[in-house]
Amino acid sequence: MKDPIPRVTVERLPIYLQCLDELPNSSDWISSERLAAMAGVNPAQVRKDLSYLGSYGVRGVGYDVDHLRQQIERELGSCRVAIVGAGNLGAALANYPGFDERGFEVAGMFDVDEAKIGTKVNGVVVEPISDLPDAVIDRKVAIGIIATPGHAAQEVADRLAEAGVQSILNFAPVVLHCGDDVDIRRVDLSTELQVLSFYLRHK
Amino acid sequence: MKDPIPRVTVERLPIYLQCLDELPNSSDWISSERLAAMAGVNPAQVRKDLSYLGSYGVRGVGYDVDHLRQQIERELGSCRVAIVGAGNLGAALANYPGFDERGFEVAGMFDVDEAKIGTKVNGVVVEPISDLPDAVIDRKVAIGIIATPGHAAQEVADRLAEAGVQSILNFAPVVLHCGDDVDIRRVDLSTELQVLSFYLRHK
Repeated sequence: MKDPIPRVTVERLPIYLQCLDELPNSSDWISSERLAAMAGVNPAQVRKDLSYLGSYGVRGVGYDVDHLRQQIERELGSCRVAIVGAGNLGAALANYPGFDERGFEVAGMFDVDEAKIGTKVNGVVVEPISDLPDAVIDRKVAIGIIATPGHAAQEVADRLAEAGVQSILNFAPVVLHCGDDVDIRRVDLSTELQVLSFYLRHK
Repeated sequence: MKDPIPRVTVERLPIYLQCLDELPNSSDWISSERLAAMAGVNPAQVRKDLSYLGSYGVRGVGYDVDHLRQQIERELGSCRVAIVGAGNLGAALANYPGFDERGFEVAGMFDVDEAKIGTKVNGVVVEPISDLPDAVIDRKVAIGIIATPGHAAQEVADRLAEAGVQSILNFAPVVLHCGDDVDIRRVDLSTELQVLSFYLRHK
């Protein structure tokens, strides 16, 4: 049996995948040094991370790019998501090409705003939030994405959890609390801005 | 002279700041263990990271929350940003409360679309992209945020660089190339979705 993959490694896998996508099409192999430089970690860490996937590379050559991409994609998986909140952020997420590229299908969009209900965002019809529970079950939605204002986010999280969603990606700028069986990750869009700002200050 | 702060530490500082913001208002102190658990790293790493800021905590008590927040905020700094692309994503970013909370001021929004130029997003008037260079210089914009479709992103990056912007935050799903003096960070909104998906698969 394989060792469980540490969380820090799991969090680096999407970054490695992004690095592989950034390679020229002609790249068949990538060294741990190159991948490390692209991902901003050290080569020993890359080799250790990839060893959890059973990928050890070829001495002096590195890793087969296509095979490595497949391994990482298989490990990360993909699933159906529902977006709650059809404002600018929700619409931006529904239109985000990266979701589709990674195999995530937007299986529903929900809002409380009568003016938005019935409109289409990237081909997905916005539905009333009252339809969320049935839709989640019928369409086998695995991940709920919260793109509402902060004040509405906890109630949405509760509804998602009640409908059986075990994973929530929260873009609202608040901390959410659900039961221990619900995995919540918060995305703070200002994080990267702060990293850039640090380097500007320290140039 | 202080040691330079390693990039991995810099990237964790916004996360620590986010953790501090998530504490109840009554929290005066936080242990490295608590902060580590919230941030998803180990306590030794937290202590090491914070030591770069000259923060060592008090044995048996931990870190003064307000003081630590101030230290991290000072280290990260803040500045004026310009958002290029006034579509859903650009509008979502202009409305994002986290920017303001972290001291980032949206000093301009730019687009090529005549229908968007002149409209207001969160109080900021959308201007033609041709006005970008002067605006960047006049308003001392330090960071350019690219929220355009992928095909337009490189040209926008070039314009920003020409206008003297040394830091670019790229939300477009493409890899951008500028000179070595321009620091580019790409945000992939599907990264966190992939981490959630991994844990769903391995539950």
